[in-house]
This record gives sequence, C-alpha cells and structure tokens, in this order.
Amino acid sequence: MAEMTKEEYKEFLLEGTKTAKLATVREDGRPHVVPIWFVLDGDNLLFTTSEPSVKAKNMKRDPRVSLSVDDQTPPYSFVTIEGTVSFSKDPEELLYWATRIGGRYMGEDKAEAFGERNASEEEILVRITPTKVIAHKNVTAW
Amino acid sequence: MAEMTKEEYKEFLLEGTKTAKLATVREDGRPHVVPIWFVLDGDNLLFTTSEPSVKAKNMKRDPRVSLSVDDQTPPYSFVTIEGTVSFSKDPEELLYWATRIGGRYMGEDKAEAFGERNASEEEILVRITPTKVIAHKNVTAW
Repeated sequence: MAEMTKEEYKEFLLEGTKTAKLATVREDGRPHVVPIWFVLDGDNLLFTTSEPSVKAKNMKRDPRVSLSVDDQTPPYSFVTIEGTVSFSKDPEELLYWATRIGGRYMGEDKAEAFGERNASEEEILVRITPTKVIAHKNVTAW
Repeated sequence: MAEMTKEEYKEFLLEGTKTAKLATVREDGRPHVVPIWFVLDGDNLLFTTSEPSVKAKNMKRDPRVSLSVDDQTPPYSFVTIEGTVSFSKDPEELLYWATRIGGRYMGEDKAEAFGERNASEEEILVRITPTKVIAHKNVTAW
C-alpha cells in the first residue's frame, strides 16, 4: 500500500465514471450512504441532488459529510474525503455544473439533456470543501 | 430505472470484486465511510476488520450501519443495504470467512494467505443482518 500524492488522487477522482459514495447522518443517528456523480472545482467536489432527498435533508441538518471513491479491482485503491457542504440554488450555476457532471457520466453528446434534467427547480447544487483526505493506492501490494 | 429482484441483487452483490462502502457514525456524530471486502451468508453480509479501526469502534457504539454497492459505469446500478451488526471473535469462524473473502477479492491461489492475514488476533468478524434493501438497475435508462 502506498499513499497517493495530491496530484495523483485528483487524477484518480476524475478518471472515468467513478462515483463517490456520500455518507451523511439521519435525524435518528443512523448512517446513510448513496452513490453520487461529481466533478471537481479546484479542491472542492460538486454534485447536484433533489432538495427533498434524504441526503439533502441530512446535510441541511448537519453539513459534515464523508465520501469514498474507490477502484474495486485488484490491487485496489481508494480515496476518503471528509468535508463540509454548502448549497446553491442559483439557476445558472446549477445548470452549468449539472451539464458538466452529465457530460462526465453520460458522455458529451448527452451532457445537455442530463444537465437540464438535473438542474430542475427542485434540485440544488452542493459544494463539498474537504477538511481531510486519505488516499491509498495498491492496497494489496504487501 | 428498474428495481432488481432479490435474486438479481444477490447476484449483483457477489459478481466480480465489487466492494461495499460501509457507513457508520463517529462518536462526535460525523459520518464515516470506507470500502470493505465482503461475502454473503444467506441474506447476511460478512466482513472482517481490525478491532481498533474507526469503523469497528463506531459499530460497537452503534450497531446500525448502511452500505452501498454500485456498478460505476453506464447505465449504472446500485444496491443500498441498511442493517445491524453483530461480532464474532471465534478463531475458526474468523479464519473460515476471511479465507473465503480473500479468495473472492484476490483469487483462490491467494485465499489462504489473505485469510490468515485477515484472521489475526486483532481482527473480528462482522455479520450484517439487513433490515432494508434498495436495489436499482439501469439508473440512467429514462
């Protein structure tokens, strides 16, 4: 196992269509985790979600989140990010990032369609500011 | 998007070397999420972890967990499992499951080596009993 440099883990996060698994905490204290599509803006992670979703409600109650992004094939690598979130409902900003995210995960030819779909009125843009990053590559090389 | 049947999601969970992202809650209320290797025993998920790990401490404080297993390529599919955990330190049981898990993720030729590594004295076997399963396939087919 070896640590990734900052350059390496940013490349790892952006490579292909890796999803992040976003963990939040429910009102009754139970953990909640779901896959999300994201892109980077500098060091921040950006994603969209619908405002009535469980994860959005959880993040509004407590902005502290944890994310896991991994390569689930040997020799296995993973990045764990802890951070705090802030929200935006600005329609232009939301459409801009939703379109970039759609392009990453569905291809440039479908970016606009997915961008519009994920920038609808009930959607919000979530920005994660990392407070701690753990990034390991070749976990099973020992 | 379509729901998976129970047969489908069990096959999905066991296919290839998909990891589960296990979410737990820290003492200060922050979420924690990390990839784990697992196998199924009937409906239960089994994995090993070291007793001093953050996730083990979190689960001993609160046995309620959430897991996400996903195919991170189009058209995207995911299974979310909520459940509660119980622990075993029985050396035979631990070695048996650690070896099966090693075989799944590293190949049968390395199963024994990884089994022994993950059944050492500070390791514990964790059994997750699901209380709720959400399983969706072809998320982007709309």
